[in-house]
Amino acid sequence: MIILGIDPGLATLGYGVLEKDAHGNVAARDYGVVLTPKEERLPTRLAILEEGLNKLLDKCCPDEVAVEELFFSKNVTTGMAVAHARGVALLTCVKRCGRLFEYTPMQIKQALTGYGKAEKRQIQIVTANLLHLKGIPRPDDAADALAVALCHSFTSRLSGLYSI
Amino acid sequence: MIILGIDPGLATLGYGVLEKDAHGNVAARDYGVVLTPKEERLPTRLAILEEGLNKLLDKCCPDEVAVEELFFSKNVTTGMAVAHARGVALLTCVKRCGRLFEYTPMQIKQALTGYGKAEKRQIQIVTANLLHLKGIPRPDDAADALAVALCHSFTSRLSGLYSI
Repeated sequence: MIILGIDPGLATLGYGVLEKDAHGNVAARDYGVVLTPKEERLPTRLAILEEGLNKLLDKCCPDEVAVEELFFSKNVTTGMAVAHARGVALLTCVKRCGRLFEYTPMQIKQALTGYGKAEKRQIQIVTANLLHLKGIPRPDDAADALAVALCHSFTSRLSGLYSI
Repeated sequence: MIILGIDPGLATLGYGVLEKDAHGNVAARDYGVVLTPKEERLPTRLAILEEGLNKLLDKCCPDEVAVEELFFSKNVTTGMAVAHARGVALLTCVKRCGRLFEYTPMQIKQALTGYGKAEKRQIQIVTANLLHLKGIPRPDDAADALAVALCHSFTSRLSGLYSI
């Protein structure tokens, strides 16, 4: 089974592709980012994001998609831009893969470390270790996307597959 | 020229369609709302919104689209949901009509009444009067959408047509 994890963003959207075998073992197949140029208008950037995501979906053909939910404590303006991008990501993915799941940052931290308030660095180290990667995936957005895909992999293994 | 105005929302997206003649006179051609059911998941609601917008774009074939920008002073959670929907609206419209413009609530109020902090009710009355409507368009989201379309009509008339 192929799981696509997405860390939504407007300038940088992170993605991580995992393959999960019948025994529940997971391995990273791909990870990276979709970028949109800051100098472009918002509607154009959203169209670029959709195009990048469609190429990614063509390439990895996921069985399930896991998307991180947004959490805002800092900048509402930045948050709004990310929410626009996340809307486009959810739309683009659900049109191609009905098995789409959402996880909060706390759920991801809890699933990977057993502690919902774990530090970002700790999540990255656990992600790299669990996937037997030589180093922490770069950039952070790609590492975050692998983490949400891993979270989904663990959560769906424990609770049985479910459609929200 | 056909101008489509959009007041973005997740549960209720307002739209208003104006026709503007060579002398700058405007008339309302259509207005209404696209609704998404609250009991559905966010990705499904975004897909319903896209479908509704595409039907509207098929029907009215706008030459230009004007979309209201978001302004949040109240509920950040609601604001995030609206921003997801607005991202989908911008994407759907820009794919069908490259001449897409954005206006802040203050710009709309300024254009319609000359006062950027005008009351919502005042904007609705001015909108109805300018379009020679018998009453204030209902629901509010449709009236707001006609207002943003009118704002675009006035702004583009004054400044000459421009592509942002």
